[in-house]
Amino acid sequence: MSSDTQVRQSNVDVLIIVSAIVEASLGHLASVMANRYQGAGPAGVIAADWMARFTKYGIKTRVVDKRSHKVFTGQADGLNPRSIEMFQSFNLAGKICSEANPMNEVSFWAPNESHGGIERGRRIPDTIPGISRYVQSVLHQGRIERHILDDMAEKSNGTMKIERGVLPESLEIDESLCEDDSAYPVKVGIRQLSEEESRPKLASKNGEVESGLYKSNLVKDEDDDVDFNPNVPVGDREIINAKYVIGADGAHSWVRRQLGFKMVGEGTDFVWGVVDGVPITNFPDIRCRAAIHSKAGSLMVIPREGALVRLYIQLNLQVDEGGHVDRSLITPKMLMDQAKAVFEPYTIDIPEILWYTGYQVGQRLTSEYAKNERVFIAGDACHTHSPKAGQGMNASMADTYNLAWKIGHVLAGHAPRSILKTYESERRPFAEHLIMNDAQLAKLFSGKPLSSAELNELGVDMKDFETVLERGISFFLGTSIEYFNSEATANGKDGRQQSKQELAKNVPIGQRFPSFQVVSQFDGRHQHLVDTMFANGQFSIVLFAGSMDNAVHRQRLQTIAQRLDSDDGVVSKHTPKDRQRDAVIDIKTVHCGVRTNVEVHDFPQPTIYPPGTYNKLYVDDVSYHAGHGEAYKNYGISKEDGAIVVVRPDHFVGLITSLDGEGMDEVEKYFDHLLTTVPAGQRNSAKDIKIIPQPVV
Amino acid sequence: MSSDTQVRQSNVDVLIIVSAIVEASLGHLASVMANRYQGAGPAGVIAADWMARFTKYGIKTRVVDKRSHKVFTGQADGLNPRSIEMFQSFNLAGKICSEANPMNEVSFWAPNESHGGIERGRRIPDTIPGISRYVQSVLHQGRIERHILDDMAEKSNGTMKIERGVLPESLEIDESLCEDDSAYPVKVGIRQLSEEESRPKLASKNGEVESGLYKSNLVKDEDDDVDFNPNVPVGDREIINAKYVIGADGAHSWVRRQLGFKMVGEGTDFVWGVVDGVPITNFPDIRCRAAIHSKAGSLMVIPREGALVRLYIQLNLQVDEGGHVDRSLITPKMLMDQAKAVFEPYTIDIPEILWYTGYQVGQRLTSEYAKNERVFIAGDACHTHSPKAGQGMNASMADTYNLAWKIGHVLAGHAPRSILKTYESERRPFAEHLIMNDAQLAKLFSGKPLSSAELNELGVDMKDFETVLERGISFFLGTSIEYFNSEATANGKDGRQQSKQELAKNVPIGQRFPSFQVVSQFDGRHQHLVDTMFANGQFSIVLFAGSMDNAVHRQRLQTIAQRLDSDDGVVSKHTPKDRQRDAVIDIKTVHCGVRTNVEVHDFPQPTIYPPGTYNKLYVDDVSYHAGHGEAYKNYGISKEDGAIVVVRPDHFVGLITSLDGEGMDEVEKYFDHLLTTVPAGQRNSAKDIKIIPQPVV
Repeated sequence: MSSDTQVRQSNVDVLIIVSAIVEASLGHLASVMANRYQGAGPAGVIAADWMARFTKYGIKTRVVDKRSHKVFTGQADGLNPRSIEMFQSFNLAGKICSEANPMNEVSFWAPNESHGGIERGRRIPDTIPGISRYVQSVLHQGRIERHILDDMAEKSNGTMKIERGVLPESLEIDESLCEDDSAYPVKVGIRQLSEEESRPKLASKNGEVESGLYKSNLVKDEDDDVDFNPNVPVGDREIINAKYVIGADGAHSWVRRQLGFKMVGEGTDFVWGVVDGVPITNFPDIRCRAAIHSKAGSLMVIPREGALVRLYIQLNLQVDEGGHVDRSLITPKMLMDQAKAVFEPYTIDIPEILWYTGYQVGQRLTSEYAKNERVFIAGDACHTHSPKAGQGMNASMADTYNLAWKIGHVLAGHAPRSILKTYESERRPFAEHLIMNDAQLAKLFSGKPLSSAELNELGVDMKDFETVLERGISFFLGTSIEYFNSEATANGKDGRQQSKQELAKNVPIGQRFPSFQVVSQFDGRHQHLVDTMFANGQFSIVLFAGSMDNAVHRQRLQTIAQRLDSDDGVVSKHTPKDRQRDAVIDIKTVHCGVRTNVEVHDFPQPTIYPPGTYNKLYVDDVSYHAGHGEAYKNYGISKEDGAIVVVRPDHFVGLITSLDGEGMDEVEKYFDHLLTTVPAGQRNSAKDIKIIPQPVV
Repeated sequence: MSSDTQVRQSNVDVLIIVSAIVEASLGHLASVMANRYQGAGPAGVIAADWMARFTKYGIKTRVVDKRSHKVFTGQADGLNPRSIEMFQSFNLAGKICSEANPMNEVSFWAPNESHGGIERGRRIPDTIPGISRYVQSVLHQGRIERHILDDMAEKSNGTMKIERGVLPESLEIDESLCEDDSAYPVKVGIRQLSEEESRPKLASKNGEVESGLYKSNLVKDEDDDVDFNPNVPVGDREIINAKYVIGADGAHSWVRRQLGFKMVGEGTDFVWGVVDGVPITNFPDIRCRAAIHSKAGSLMVIPREGALVRLYIQLNLQVDEGGHVDRSLITPKMLMDQAKAVFEPYTIDIPEILWYTGYQVGQRLTSEYAKNERVFIAGDACHTHSPKAGQGMNASMADTYNLAWKIGHVLAGHAPRSILKTYESERRPFAEHLIMNDAQLAKLFSGKPLSSAELNELGVDMKDFETVLERGISFFLGTSIEYFNSEATANGKDGRQQSKQELAKNVPIGQRFPSFQVVSQFDGRHQHLVDTMFANGQFSIVLFAGSMDNAVHRQRLQTIAQRLDSDDGVVSKHTPKDRQRDAVIDIKTVHCGVRTNVEVHDFPQPTIYPPGTYNKLYVDDVSYHAGHGEAYKNYGISKEDGAIVVVRPDHFVGLITSLDGEGMDEVEKYFDHLLTTVPAGQRNSAKDIKIIPQPVV
């Protein structure tokens, strides 16, 4: 590479390096999708959309992708309820769900003792009822990413876009600058590729049908670079000096390799095939997630948008560590022959295979997640596992959903760099858990099914299989993930601050804040409580204040309001003068009186009820159109005692404490630990807010 | 105009002439909206989005707008539940509702006897609970139109877009060709304007605040043309030969004036002012639809997106027929002074008025809706009334939602031209009803409120007011509109075909088909029944088939299936060979057995259960995640007798009849009357469909 002095330099707060997945799908589906897809991988788009929300603080983020924009994909992926909750925090669930196919039911199929073909066992809901507002769904990844990138453009006022055809060539970290907040310690050399260079070979051909084999994980990491070392004259080069870099560049991550992190995991991979198309079949559960264990092998049916179906087909192939299967073995005919054998005595035909691929099921985890808390990797760059449980997209998005707001707050001056350590301490244990579950599931799926008569230690007991799958489902839904090992979680473990879990029995500390219906004090509308906290970086302090038509409770809230309005209070202390008062910490009040017995000016101004603001005051009361949300009851909170719950910007529960002076001490302690303390003269002050006088009636 | 021989000519099936509303909003709101809004008026966009769904039959539609694309607006409008149901039929409700502000509560305010200021009376829900899945909502018109136009682009595969800066100059109908299906009897001369010509003067200034006065209805029809007769060299001219023309070009409709239709109505107009902004107030119901009758005059509060509020303010001005108020009288200060007087004893201030306008409340209706069933007018071109009840947008969209699919089916060869007469016979009685309700409401609103002590014949009794408003609400929700006077409604009146209303007691014939939850037989998902009928021009025959786990009921359905599979059956008879079998008439079956007792291959193929199709078979059973929809019970249908309900493409109920041979006769009679009969050899035949054999287990 030429020396820095000859090359254009620029500074940026955050550089996100992504790599759009390149898998070709052709025929009908491709023509529909080709002019729509402009993705960047799930981890990348979530990071970008989060950072878009910090552009209001002058924080600049660039997103670079070595692929040209003419990339499209046949990728489909499952969305678990937690991912859809996350979309909803960006106000995107409605848009995405209106296009997605809900996966409603799992049915288990196993060999019939007499005829030897398959027969249906149990049927269960794919999403445990009551666990979330949303159910497991499937939507083409390109559509999902399109909605998120549209949102990124909107939230950044059009300032953010993906820079395509940009090849990263070098990455250096100046470790001496890493603890300096004003420094740009990461140097990334990039080169603008020509349109021709950045357009990947879209697919390999195998007979008439185009496939995703070329870019499946059946290739080596190094193969990914081959396209991008064309021997052409030097393009436009640039050195980007970045404060932070996020490598969300997929399983073959270039960033990970620059950092020297190793992928550690299992030695042997099972090989599976995938086929997409519209089947003609008399198999009755073709619209369910059917988990089939037959004498011929295993198969999973994933119903997709429209009449599309994806089949995951176990193949009689295994690969040893570091090895790769001969891709020429995997053909549409071979896959369908195997599928037909599994479905016996039912018939299945896919007149037009729209796309197919093969992949190796291996569970691997990166040795490290971050270098100097300046360069982070996320998503497939950190962990690989089988796509069958539909966790690839979910786990990847959850990584950057956890990471990006922390970087945003550090750059905005709201939080010290120490908060960044919680990325790995929160996400690595999750990934370990994921990989363990996935490995267990993959083994069961790839094991030979045996009828009870033949059962031996090499086989798979169908009861075990169903039990593990059911237990796995609970984990894979994503709603019970717990950040138990984090400085941002006051769970009392390892010397950390202690919550009062008993005050909100059904709000597990360290897990995502569940959502129940409340009613707006202002206009009586019913809303899910978390829908009043759309993701924009704010921590929320939710005051479950008891009943506002009870004078004692009203006085109790008044006392808390005085602390919150004070210049030494938690809001002023962590919010600079030039920010909106609720920019860092937002106060929501949910009382449990009768809405119409209370007037909004009964609430204390200005921190709890900021004049002219209508998204802070709620009531747990009956609604006009959707019954009673019973929020106190569902959260396990006493209407007499109330509670304070601190919810993080990613909707995870940081602290639960009491609605009194002691509780307020705990709230202050939590934020003192996590956020930057603004010097006394520079604080946002409640005194600057004009109170609206009570009406004189 | 130069003679036709010198001018380029082109043919088009449908020409939609629209006129984007030009009202300026500036300041904060405008900067948000300016780069987003590219509307075309509500009637125009719905017509265009419907026609986009007929492009698949090779039907070509153009949409022209004389305004340039650099038009934006401060217009906000209420959406009633029926309009949101209509959006949902285009699969757009989720997108639009995620941005809209639900108006949840109406509160009535009247003078207090002792202090003379206002006090709160009753509070009621703004939408009658249970009447619809949706509630009255408010969203900026530009956002709504943007979503619809995006959908138009998608559904037309990118072939349809609004042609901006296109001025219509002449319109001629060759009456001798009007009954010839292959003719293009309407000639419209258009001229492409320069960017400069087509950019209207955006606003008049009144002090510092920009207003919408320039384009409010305070100007004469003719004033609308002044901008568009610039004395410049001739631009690119074209004669469009159209089969059909829809004039959705607003209250000052150029199309209406070419046809010579007159607006007929009241002689005296009340004058109201409108102010948009973020108020600082201690009035507690600022987020409700507050209907205020004070001694100083009337006012209505409309809560909008974010913290925005619109105030409709009654002014002490009246205008006689044909007259127009002096616009210079209406200033922000004058409007706010009046508002402040109304709100006493509460205080209100709008530090930054974002937009304001004035309008005259007059109720007028066009003398005719259509010329030769070749040129139609719709929306504000047909009817004007007060915007206060939020009906402008709803009524306009419902006009073209009623009209466009009929034109589509005529052009596609599925229906005879006689169906087009139902546009006026359905929509004019509605408009008359609307205008009557609106006039009553406007008079009450503009009347002087009197305390009971002062009540006399000139005043308004607050009880009357509330009663009329409540009754009006029921009408304005849009869910009870009945097309009682139409050949497409088998209601037995005026010699029309008779329905058996008693078989589906809660499905009023001629009204929109209500929606209740059913469960997919295929995958157990719960869905609203109308969400299985997204608008694409199909009529639906819904077979409420009784219980599929009852052998007698199964046999009954089998008998009906035989008629439906026949080449003389209603599907084949009205569907040409080159169409999908369900293109014109779609069969849905809703049984009421136990889902898991029934297999999908128990349903008769191929018309009722077309192989490879998963959106035809439903069950009224308990769901995993949303309880039991009780559809039979809610529709008032007996589980023993069942029923057949024919639902039109716009979700209005055409026919209710019995689930037997006699009922099938009625179904055939209904469609014989309404649709074209395909000659015997050219029919779509069930025999061409490959049946999937039953599994051999």
